[in-house]
Amino acid sequence: MRDIEILGNISQGTDFIKKTKNKKFVFSFVISYTATCEIPGITVAGANPALLKFTAAADAEFLHYGYCKSIDAIPMTPDGKPTPALLTKVALETASIPCFVINAGSKVIPKLPYVELGLEPGKNIAQESALDKKLVKKAVENGRIVGRSLGSSADCLIIGESIPGGTTTALGVLKGLGVEALVSSSMPQNPTNLKNKTVQSALKRLQSTADPYDVVAELGDPMIPSVAGMLSTASEYANVILAGGTQMAAVLAFAKNIGFNEKNTVIGTTSYIVDDKTANLVDAVRQIADIPVLVAKLRLGQSKISGLRSYAKGFVKEGAGAGGASIACMIKTGLDTEKLLLLTEKEYQRITSQ
Amino acid sequence: MRDIEILGNISQGTDFIKKTKNKKFVFSFVISYTATCEIPGITVAGANPALLKFTAAADAEFLHYGYCKSIDAIPMTPDGKPTPALLTKVALETASIPCFVINAGSKVIPKLPYVELGLEPGKNIAQESALDKKLVKKAVENGRIVGRSLGSSADCLIIGESIPGGTTTALGVLKGLGVEALVSSSMPQNPTNLKNKTVQSALKRLQSTADPYDVVAELGDPMIPSVAGMLSTASEYANVILAGGTQMAAVLAFAKNIGFNEKNTVIGTTSYIVDDKTANLVDAVRQIADIPVLVAKLRLGQSKISGLRSYAKGFVKEGAGAGGASIACMIKTGLDTEKLLLLTEKEYQRITSQ
Repeated sequence: MRDIEILGNISQGTDFIKKTKNKKFVFSFVISYTATCEIPGITVAGANPALLKFTAAADAEFLHYGYCKSIDAIPMTPDGKPTPALLTKVALETASIPCFVINAGSKVIPKLPYVELGLEPGKNIAQESALDKKLVKKAVENGRIVGRSLGSSADCLIIGESIPGGTTTALGVLKGLGVEALVSSSMPQNPTNLKNKTVQSALKRLQSTADPYDVVAELGDPMIPSVAGMLSTASEYANVILAGGTQMAAVLAFAKNIGFNEKNTVIGTTSYIVDDKTANLVDAVRQIADIPVLVAKLRLGQSKISGLRSYAKGFVKEGAGAGGASIACMIKTGLDTEKLLLLTEKEYQRITSQ
Repeated sequence: MRDIEILGNISQGTDFIKKTKNKKFVFSFVISYTATCEIPGITVAGANPALLKFTAAADAEFLHYGYCKSIDAIPMTPDGKPTPALLTKVALETASIPCFVINAGSKVIPKLPYVELGLEPGKNIAQESALDKKLVKKAVENGRIVGRSLGSSADCLIIGESIPGGTTTALGVLKGLGVEALVSSSMPQNPTNLKNKTVQSALKRLQSTADPYDVVAELGDPMIPSVAGMLSTASEYANVILAGGTQMAAVLAFAKNIGFNEKNTVIGTTSYIVDDKTANLVDAVRQIADIPVLVAKLRLGQSKISGLRSYAKGFVKEGAGAGGASIACMIKTGLDTEKLLLLTEKEYQRITSQ
């Protein structure tokens, strides 16, 4: 397909697109929280720290209702850069892909039905351990149950996430598990120094990297073990698109230790992640598993709307499973990103004219 | 199929079996609570009132794990009559049908992932209104969302329930909505006088039967509007088996008012419900909608285990979606109830030898 670039394991990627054509896709949206996002300057959403805890729930509500119930507006920066959930919503609606919201320790509960995993928000890794190790195990176990149910009812399960500050905890887990990683950011001036400093201080607390559960407990967040658990069972039954950037690389690195079916697994992301010179998603994935990285070649840079064009200038780039959802939409409907851009602009105009 | 009897709309029932053969089934298990079950003598589970609030959560845990986490044992009467979830578990496992637990106001939260609808337990209708009308609306609205997601990921959605005392609230809703109904019971000596007395006192509080939401708010329970909402959207996308007895007739009576696709809907139940002379399931359904009632002709009466034989003697009879799950299992695998009986006995022996 013209607007899906295949990197990494190319033959398996080509196969993946073939075998999921005209099949049933299901999207799962894992919402979570890490207090690491409260470190000033670590995330673009930090422009308004009081709203950080609402981001994930608001994204979930927007995907379902087209508006948010927990906050008054759709997540957007003051100058009009919209949440990537906008792209996700357009892709899912266009392709009639159902969405399940999964609460993996979000600080705010969304005002809609959601799958409850019984976790707690992650703590600030600059200051203390992210999670109790028992909670990491519970996240994996409950993730496995949900992955089994969703995987055996779909032909292809897409897993997206929303967790502010999640690229920093992803960096921590990747480093802790020995993956040479540079992580992406929601800002064009990636605060890599701040992220590295945060991770370095957390790494000091780690007694040993021998047990990957310890690594996630010290440096991670609740999303990572939950999605790893989902992947481990879902990939036995169905094809799985891990929809995201470096955060999904961290999921993969941890999942490698608990087991999953590589033959059925791809990463699906946006071109803005792959183009990001401060990150190295494809290299990081290659160090972990020989799987494809599918890239949605979005055309937001051609948009007449500056908030959308900003994605091509290094803002936001990805999130809320936008890349994976766009890929699934293209595979299922045969549409290209030109058409998706038009639909996205229409949706942007709808929400900004309310 | 030899062991599935079709009553009601026979041609549509025959069709239903044909069109769901070899298709993807998904089971949803709606757990809930009504304080009406606390009326002494109204339910078989009442042998141990302190455990009533655990019944639904324990059933859900048993379906998933094969044991319960919230209580020490599998729900069973002291003399060995097992929860109908035993039959459900055997059917779902045998046919590899995934299960989603849906919390519609259960008093105890199950120790596994579940879909949260954000409701509260129902109140005792002998004493006060069952639910705030706002909560009835929320149940319908959130049920619709879940029904859409589950219905669009499956070819056939089975909806079962576990709510102790639910036959009394079902009787209330049926009477309030003008359906001539006699309801079934988990006991051979159906306490119909007690149930009728309870419903009569609740009916007195009802100002008018004009608004079906008022009827459910006064006489119902959280399960009924939740499942009605699920049915209304799921039946637009998929085939739906309402798995249960008179409680599903109450769901149908309410759903008739909010709209659902009759062409895709069947009731699925056990022969013990249809044989129950104190109830009139097929008549009640006929008054509401021209749909099929599929009956699993179980052979528990032929069992060597007295706890299972008791089902044929009028105990328990149905529940936890046992009839509908058995029907789905037979349609999907082609097995008959002789084989299902063997598997059920094996499972009974496993749990009683632990």
